[in-house]
Amino acid sequence: MKENRVCNFNAGPAALPLPVLEEIKDSFLNFNGSGMSVTEISHRSKWFDDVINDAVARTKRLLNLDDRFRVLFIQGGASLQFCMIPMNFLGQGQSADYVNTGTWSAKAIKEVQIQGKTANVVASSEDKDFSYIPGNIPFNSDAVYAHITSNNTIKGTQWAEFPDTKGVPLVSDMSSDIMSRPFDVNPFGLIYAGAQKNIGPAGVCMAIIREDMLEKVPDSLPSMLKYTTFSKKDSMYNTPPCFAIYTIQLVLKWLEDTVGGLEKMDGINRKKADVLYSIIDSGDFYRGTAETGSRSLMNVTFRLPSEELEKKFIQTALENDLGGLKGHRSVGGCRASIYNATGLEAIETLADFMKTFEKENG
Amino acid sequence: MKENRVCNFNAGPAALPLPVLEEIKDSFLNFNGSGMSVTEISHRSKWFDDVINDAVARTKRLLNLDDRFRVLFIQGGASLQFCMIPMNFLGQGQSADYVNTGTWSAKAIKEVQIQGKTANVVASSEDKDFSYIPGNIPFNSDAVYAHITSNNTIKGTQWAEFPDTKGVPLVSDMSSDIMSRPFDVNPFGLIYAGAQKNIGPAGVCMAIIREDMLEKVPDSLPSMLKYTTFSKKDSMYNTPPCFAIYTIQLVLKWLEDTVGGLEKMDGINRKKADVLYSIIDSGDFYRGTAETGSRSLMNVTFRLPSEELEKKFIQTALENDLGGLKGHRSVGGCRASIYNATGLEAIETLADFMKTFEKENG
Repeated sequence: MKENRVCNFNAGPAALPLPVLEEIKDSFLNFNGSGMSVTEISHRSKWFDDVINDAVARTKRLLNLDDRFRVLFIQGGASLQFCMIPMNFLGQGQSADYVNTGTWSAKAIKEVQIQGKTANVVASSEDKDFSYIPGNIPFNSDAVYAHITSNNTIKGTQWAEFPDTKGVPLVSDMSSDIMSRPFDVNPFGLIYAGAQKNIGPAGVCMAIIREDMLEKVPDSLPSMLKYTTFSKKDSMYNTPPCFAIYTIQLVLKWLEDTVGGLEKMDGINRKKADVLYSIIDSGDFYRGTAETGSRSLMNVTFRLPSEELEKKFIQTALENDLGGLKGHRSVGGCRASIYNATGLEAIETLADFMKTFEKENG
Repeated sequence: MKENRVCNFNAGPAALPLPVLEEIKDSFLNFNGSGMSVTEISHRSKWFDDVINDAVARTKRLLNLDDRFRVLFIQGGASLQFCMIPMNFLGQGQSADYVNTGTWSAKAIKEVQIQGKTANVVASSEDKDFSYIPGNIPFNSDAVYAHITSNNTIKGTQWAEFPDTKGVPLVSDMSSDIMSRPFDVNPFGLIYAGAQKNIGPAGVCMAIIREDMLEKVPDSLPSMLKYTTFSKKDSMYNTPPCFAIYTIQLVLKWLEDTVGGLEKMDGINRKKADVLYSIIDSGDFYRGTAETGSRSLMNVTFRLPSEELEKKFIQTALENDLGGLKGHRSVGGCRASIYNATGLEAIETLADFMKTFEKENG
């Protein structure tokens, strides 16, 4: 591969589209005729205005957002959102519904409790080691919002369809599947996504907030912890993470202009996941950890007959320039993260490797 | 200049050392033999471990930090620190001292008040439009900490020496002059610095905290707003802003290995500032806005005889590839920000331009 690049199956930070990386590289000493690097231009310059405005406009087009929605860029990752959400939306005596589908949901719930507020865990898949997405969930009609994790990187599960909350605003951590497929944004009061999986590098979180949620934000919060601060100042109350936003802009440009939008991307992503799940389902050597109907199109998690073989699999893959296949340190096993930027070609290389490895070790 | 680069006098984001930009560019598609971009490697990989560990080690060597100090990387800029500081250190019934030397100090004070806590403004230079650094300050011996802004980018003032607080821990926003000169770190309980002026790109704040300050942090805070979370997890509780930290590492390597450390840097910075202040002091055409003894070595602020001439000065400079000379939008006038990465050569080019402009318009 070009410049000795490997096939990158990292869970995040993860692969970025090669044309995006090449454009960053080529213009790195002189951005857009400014005579400066993109890391050296002022965030108040016309150069950066063009970058952030284009990133917002492309997000709105790709997700079909109407004027009720604001696209914000906030630092601190999804982890800061876990605490900002109850801080901004949950007043005295109010409560929110949370669905617990694993580590990230649990962290979001914990941050509500740290603030002495009420998170009603209305469903959980902990009974089967988070191997599925719960159904028939008894959401509370008086909840201020209902929180879900749309894709679970560690256990390899994903909401195939979003639940009907009967008008209660959905709030979703979409860090690991934003922009991977089209969906109806209307039920969502807030969508947030750490960029480092599907849309950019680490160091920025995209937050898409609906105007009725902004009305809930109390004035009394610290400036940097209020969604209204970011909304009023177009994410520029203070210096934003310019380079990360610039990379997002280029990734969205690639997604819109080269891939052709979210339906096209979804088609490719389904094809990619199918290739790997077919191998897993073809015999007993590879065993998928998620229930079939809850499988993630982004993170394919699987086990081999023994931990020894898993270790050998990961090591041999690495020697064949297939990187990032180790499962999360909390659960072990193997995981292929196949976000938007990991192309079908890389998937097929991995598939060939899996077949060969099974033949030699099965 | 190489690749048509301009002389960059931006206030922040600001110039970065050219060798740093070149190294980022050259390795952008394949970082350190990983076969991945630095934006694609895992933050839990050996590649990133080497980056962040080296950034911390160089910070400790450059600033002469002993083992009582921890070097942390936090997102959200200095603005998030304004609220984290009182949140982490100020308990019920306690108060802190603040010195008000302009916009950034005032914002720090405001965030204490938003939390309903007490900031005693023990000195202010507001009486003379923030054109000087106050002296003989009556610090309170029972203050939990005493907060200063070491360099004031907007008004062009800087603490030449730090005040004696008689044992009360100093807390300083050093966003605009960190690593520009050596100083005694011992009186400081916390030093924080948005990276985008002297040490890196926008998107990360360096926080240097002394262990006695960590003991003040209450357990009950949200995880992402506690210094102890970052300290216990070596800034990796969640995915850190990897690219920004990598750039800091390279800037510190340049500072240590190429420049030769902070005494050398300070010598160069003094020479640079002298060149510009000499022109300002040589006649009536350029008028410095800061009192002589309080002048900043980082931001040289000055006025011309009329706003019309200032506009022409900034515009003509731009046509001569001298960028970023406009004063902050809140005060107008002119400003040359001359951080570490803006070399003597660029200063001399600006000095020549200033002389010519005066001759033609004076």
